[in-house]
Amino acid sequence: MVRAMTKDALIAAFGGESMAHMRYQIFADIAEKEGFKNVSRLFRGIAYAEKVHASNHYNALREYNEDQIAHSGVPIGPGNTSKNLELAIRGEEFEVKEMYPVYIDIAKMQGENEALKSFNFALKAEEIHAELYKQAKKDVDSGKDFNLKGRVYVCPVCGYTYVGEEPPERCPICGAKREMFRDF
Amino acid sequence: MVRAMTKDALIAAFGGESMAHMRYQIFADIAEKEGFKNVSRLFRGIAYAEKVHASNHYNALREYNEDQIAHSGVPIGPGNTSKNLELAIRGEEFEVKEMYPVYIDIAKMQGENEALKSFNFALKAEEIHAELYKQAKKDVDSGKDFNLKGRVYVCPVCGYTYVGEEPPERCPICGAKREMFRDF
Ligand SMILES: [Fe+2]
Ligand SMILES: [Fe+2]
Ligand SMILES: [Fe+2]
Ligand SMILES: [Fe+2]
Ligand SMILES: [Fe+2]
Ligand SMILES: [Fe+2]
Repeated sequence: MVRAMTKDALIAAFGGESMAHMRYQIFADIAEKEGFKNVSRLFRGIAYAEKVHASNHYNALREYNEDQIAHSGVPIGPGNTSKNLELAIRGEEFEVKEMYPVYIDIAKMQGENEALKSFNFALKAEEIHAELYKQAKKDVDSGKDFNLKGRVYVCPVCGYTYVGEEPPERCPICGAKREMFRDF
Repeated sequence: MVRAMTKDALIAAFGGESMAHMRYQIFADIAEKEGFKNVSRLFRGIAYAEKVHASNHYNALREYNEDQIAHSGVPIGPGNTSKNLELAIRGEEFEVKEMYPVYIDIAKMQGENEALKSFNFALKAEEIHAELYKQAKKDVDSGKDFNLKGRVYVCPVCGYTYVGEEPPERCPICGAKREMFRDF
């Protein structure tokens, strides 16, 4: 059994990642309509990374829990691509600076190693997501599409995200081989 | 501006639909691995319907809202396909019997017509989802795959879901033409 406070953190994180996944899919559709093809690909790639995080948190629960409530922070509401990138940066920075450091601390204190690993993977990937969204926002705000050379690669184990011609041979977060990466 | 109580309901419903979408994707992967190809297709089709609901709720918010918390009920935890169908039925029935009737009442009382429409579309689709999952669970529990003849069709406007050879010409929930339906 996962201890109660870690379980609450896993459920809240599952809620947060599920909503991030959903928002990025919605944002990808909007970016496509607005002609920002590369921003759209970035949103789709990172949406997949959030699915990886949500699945990891889900599995770390280990057993079925009835009638839980997820309490998850969410910046929310319709906007254009520039606004959507702002929301995305805000969400990623919340996870990097507030949410995951606290959840990692809880899991450490309670000796919940599977949850700890899942939170750590997410934290490291979110730092990269925040950075990529900032680059994309800069391009969009100067009237251009995201300057994406190559493809968006995502590690299916930890959600590590790489934008470029050729990803590293091994995932720098979890060690998975690059042959496993999905690309967008 | 959407009134406060309706806004809370929209955000909670967005959280619930986003988590349902995520769980059904995870369940679809598991069903595929366990050899239940048709159950997997059902989960993928209904996952898309939940994306439609989440997007409708998102757009009904009309404007950006900072630092919101989504409080969303969720039956959660890893299991095999029979267990996952049980969770899915539980979630759909919660939405049909508890969540959407209350949210519809709130939106009606507050005269929030866009939210009301979004909640009504979801309620009607969830009734069908609960029924389809029950059929699938019966098949799986007698050791067979879901007896799916034809395809899983989903209306991209309201999430109406039809399993069979030929969907009705017009969506019975929202009136959209069948040419718009996505299939799985
Ligand atoms: Fe994430
Ligand atoms: Fe992220
Ligand atoms: Fe990785
Ligand atoms: Fe739904
Ligand atoms: Fe549903
Ligand atoms: Fe419809």
